[in-house]
Amino acid sequence: MKLSQTYKVSRTFRREDTVVEIGGVVIGDVQICVIAGPCSVESRKQLLAVAHAVKQSGATMLRGGAFKPRTSPYAFQGLGEAGLWLLREAREQVDLPIVTEVMSCEQIALVAAYADVLQIGARNMQNYPLLHAVSDAGKPILLKRGAGNTLHELLMAAEHILSRGNAQVILCERGIRTFETATRYTFDINAIPVLKELTHLPVIADPSHGVGQTQHVPSIAKSAIAAGADGIIVEVHDNPDDALSDGAQSLTPTMFERLMVDLERIVGAVDRTLSPAYEPVAAL
Amino acid sequence: MKLSQTYKVSRTFRREDTVVEIGGVVIGDVQICVIAGPCSVESRKQLLAVAHAVKQSGATMLRGGAFKPRTSPYAFQGLGEAGLWLLREAREQVDLPIVTEVMSCEQIALVAAYADVLQIGARNMQNYPLLHAVSDAGKPILLKRGAGNTLHELLMAAEHILSRGNAQVILCERGIRTFETATRYTFDINAIPVLKELTHLPVIADPSHGVGQTQHVPSIAKSAIAAGADGIIVEVHDNPDDALSDGAQSLTPTMFERLMVDLERIVGAVDRTLSPAYEPVAAL
Amino acid sequence: MKLSQTYKVSRTFRREDTVVEIGGVVIGDVQICVIAGPCSVESRKQLLAVAHAVKQSGATMLRGGAFKPRTSPYAFQGLGEAGLWLLREAREQVDLPIVTEVMSCEQIALVAAYADVLQIGARNMQNYPLLHAVSDAGKPILLKRGAGNTLHELLMAAEHILSRGNAQVILCERGIRTFETATRYTFDINAIPVLKELTHLPVIADPSHGVGQTQHVPSIAKSAIAAGADGIIVEVHDNPDDALSDGAQSLTPTMFERLMVDLERIVGAVDRTLSPAYEPVAAL
Amino acid sequence: MKLSQTYKVSRTFRREDTVVEIGGVVIGDVQICVIAGPCSVESRKQLLAVAHAVKQSGATMLRGGAFKPRTSPYAFQGLGEAGLWLLREAREQVDLPIVTEVMSCEQIALVAAYADVLQIGARNMQNYPLLHAVSDAGKPILLKRGAGNTLHELLMAAEHILSRGNAQVILCERGIRTFETATRYTFDINAIPVLKELTHLPVIADPSHGVGQTQHVPSIAKSAIAAGADGIIVEVHDNPDDALSDGAQSLTPTMFERLMVDLERIVGAVDRTLSPAYEPVAAL
Repeated sequence: MKLSQTYKVSRTFRREDTVVEIGGVVIGDVQICVIAGPCSVESRKQLLAVAHAVKQSGATMLRGGAFKPRTSPYAFQGLGEAGLWLLREAREQVDLPIVTEVMSCEQIALVAAYADVLQIGARNMQNYPLLHAVSDAGKPILLKRGAGNTLHELLMAAEHILSRGNAQVILCERGIRTFETATRYTFDINAIPVLKELTHLPVIADPSHGVGQTQHVPSIAKSAIAAGADGIIVEVHDNPDDALSDGAQSLTPTMFERLMVDLERIVGAVDRTLSPAYEPVAAL
Repeated sequence: MKLSQTYKVSRTFRREDTVVEIGGVVIGDVQICVIAGPCSVESRKQLLAVAHAVKQSGATMLRGGAFKPRTSPYAFQGLGEAGLWLLREAREQVDLPIVTEVMSCEQIALVAAYADVLQIGARNMQNYPLLHAVSDAGKPILLKRGAGNTLHELLMAAEHILSRGNAQVILCERGIRTFETATRYTFDINAIPVLKELTHLPVIADPSHGVGQTQHVPSIAKSAIAAGADGIIVEVHDNPDDALSDGAQSLTPTMFERLMVDLERIVGAVDRTLSPAYEPVAAL
Repeated sequence: MKLSQTYKVSRTFRREDTVVEIGGVVIGDVQICVIAGPCSVESRKQLLAVAHAVKQSGATMLRGGAFKPRTSPYAFQGLGEAGLWLLREAREQVDLPIVTEVMSCEQIALVAAYADVLQIGARNMQNYPLLHAVSDAGKPILLKRGAGNTLHELLMAAEHILSRGNAQVILCERGIRTFETATRYTFDINAIPVLKELTHLPVIADPSHGVGQTQHVPSIAKSAIAAGADGIIVEVHDNPDDALSDGAQSLTPTMFERLMVDLERIVGAVDRTLSPAYEPVAAL
Repeated sequence: MKLSQTYKVSRTFRREDTVVEIGGVVIGDVQICVIAGPCSVESRKQLLAVAHAVKQSGATMLRGGAFKPRTSPYAFQGLGEAGLWLLREAREQVDLPIVTEVMSCEQIALVAAYADVLQIGARNMQNYPLLHAVSDAGKPILLKRGAGNTLHELLMAAEHILSRGNAQVILCERGIRTFETATRYTFDINAIPVLKELTHLPVIADPSHGVGQTQHVPSIAKSAIAAGADGIIVEVHDNPDDALSDGAQSLTPTMFERLMVDLERIVGAVDRTLSPAYEPVAAL
């Protein structure tokens, strides 16, 4: 695939890597970004437990959904603004920037008042009015690839944002729809080097949705870093069996701690680093 | 696939076919609905030429995009409200109900003031805040299947609308993403009988996007009716070579007239009828 | 898709439709070919019951598998040569040409001694040594599209046969692998008009595999004829619940009889005919 | 996906990893296997140049096609037996076991006289007579996943081999067909940990076909090892621009040397080793 050099997202338009800064965290530089947290914010107790655990293990940002797009209208739709309050409290306690999804233009002002990074979910990748409005909010944006969307469409979705003047966009591969039914989605590992060649924007991986089964999340996380990703976003829950969403693909804090230990070795093998604050756990 | 009978969209929840009425037009009954018109409203001259032509050939509704979701931010994005004015004028001249897309919650009040049916495009099939708001507008809704979405997800998107109290939903199969590159999308003909079995909602077909090549649109339109679809929505342009969008899959008025003649025979062969107003063209 | 005119399969190489003749049956002309019979030949009683029934309802050829490629090595693999004997007996009783699959070069001489048409199954579409050997056998060949193969690859597989001197090739669309799980495969209806444009070879449809659920087979059969297919191949079993293979997609003789009645109307609506011998059943 | 414990391929049938031994090389143990060489054996000069280069850089086996399945019947189909002679000569010179494809039952005796590992290509994954015959040949088998086949079907294809008594089977993920057109295939990285969980057989990766573009092959190779693969098979050509097949995805010897240096670090980071004979290149 060739990308016209007139597109602001293309590497011919801008040769140097874009580095997005959020608080003290950078994405797109030598340092690998690790975003962790629950799929949904479910309760104060749950969020704070997970937040402290992932911070302890070396995560650099905290994720958590307050507004949840769900296939069924009768599934848990998130705590809404109450979830945002809890995310703010978690940030104060663990000092990690917050990533959370925004689902509609109306929510942007509210969510932007609490979040450090605004996430556009896979279902909304081609919701152009939302892309335009979120661009105008001026915050960094995490743009997830739609499960049925090509890499060209992902880059054009990012172009919709950049064309409005906001260049702080982080792309996220999270698995695509294929005929394979052994896994929830097919994580498109090819997307990592292809995107890094075509665009200057940072590219991260979501192994939790990409494979959809807890026991395989660490393998996919490691593979993404080995392939050149600038970070990962991973679901962690203190009690996956009781999770209100995505329990089958959530790591426990212990599994996450173990992943960080393993990941540090891969990170080193591709001349990257984890957070400067990261200190390996002594013994596992 | 089984669908829980607790879902309002399921045929176990409601056994009889839902018939949506728009002006004098019905969808979901014995009569086949034919929605035709340009992809985008481009000019007064273009829209009126196409509107008169498709009316003459027996179309029962007029389609035309005023707000256009486009992959590239630099492509023609539609005439906006000016396009809606033109659609209203066309309706007055040819007396056909209007179907047009609404892309965001903010546009709903405006679009609803002009349109008879609000279309949710394929990219927005899982834009739940939009589904909720459009449900509340109380108008009939044409819900297109996302190119990367399963039939279960399509039915759940409709459930998001019905759960808010609006049951006038028309489902539309318009082709899915597959590995086949000989055509723009793969029209999922299986979707027609599968949906008709699972749900009481009307199901129509979009052969223009489904195959993406003008010369094959009539074959796919006929196949959809033979498989049990309640209607078709087809792109017609008076000058496809100069179309601002979807020229490669638009029929000319002459081709559309020919399609209607052929379609009438298929319609009869499955014990359906075209519009009562339809009169076959004398000689072709 | 463009096809080089140097390819023997292309319509620019040969403009007129290729008409394959088998016994008195023709495929590729105005007459629609209906091939029916069980997935596997299971017993003398089963085969003869089905053969008489489908003959009675107007089928023009009899299908039945003697050598069965099965995903599991422990599933029923067909009766082998004993199945061929039974097919010959059925042919003598009902006077219908026989279509049966050949899985390896070693089987060709044996199968060709009994069958009128040699079928290459979907799994073997790119088994080039088999294509070459079957071409050399000089019999008409029914070439099924692989579930993971493009139309270009299907045409090139046919080219492998034609390049060896055998031009009696019938192409068969039978559904492809996609992300949709509501049906066994996704019947690619687009393939029908696209193939008819690109090649002069006859194109038939297998709605049984294409949708994989008995109740939807008739809809897909009708849609394929409406789209321009030259025939169908459909699985019929006298007792689908006890079938050793493909029971979930097999029609009963009664359902097949009903399909033929409905199909005749579609066939007429596209200016085609069923077999000259076909006489509609009086009352259903 | 669950796999019945009655299947010989399943990890519940046999808990310990199967280790396949070929000459002094082992696959499925702690040591990572690196199979490299040209797509097609094209000439003595080409093969020997590549063989010496990959040996020098640490490859543990030599690949090269003598019989080539090609989509077009007019493309280069391989040198046939002459290619096998050259592979034998290369083995004598560089002392690496040979992997080469066998396309039909007739070829097995011939190919088995020269090759150390018999490869079943992706197009033949469900060619069951071939699987049975190659099983009976008693040599180790490299079984490539078909581009349109599920992991379950791959495991069942292996079961066809094991059920005949040959347990020396190496599985190979090489990319699947998806809607994404930016790459030749979509390398299914999920397949690596999923297969390693379900089966005791060794699993290797083919990044050359998996991504299909030279510049991205190293990233995918590294990702596969990070995800737990037991080895890689990679295409190397001394002059990719003039290759008779797969030039666009072949590494040069220099690129391969560089890959081995990078790979050694990933291998170490997952507690594996390269060949005992591997000595890192001094300076790059």
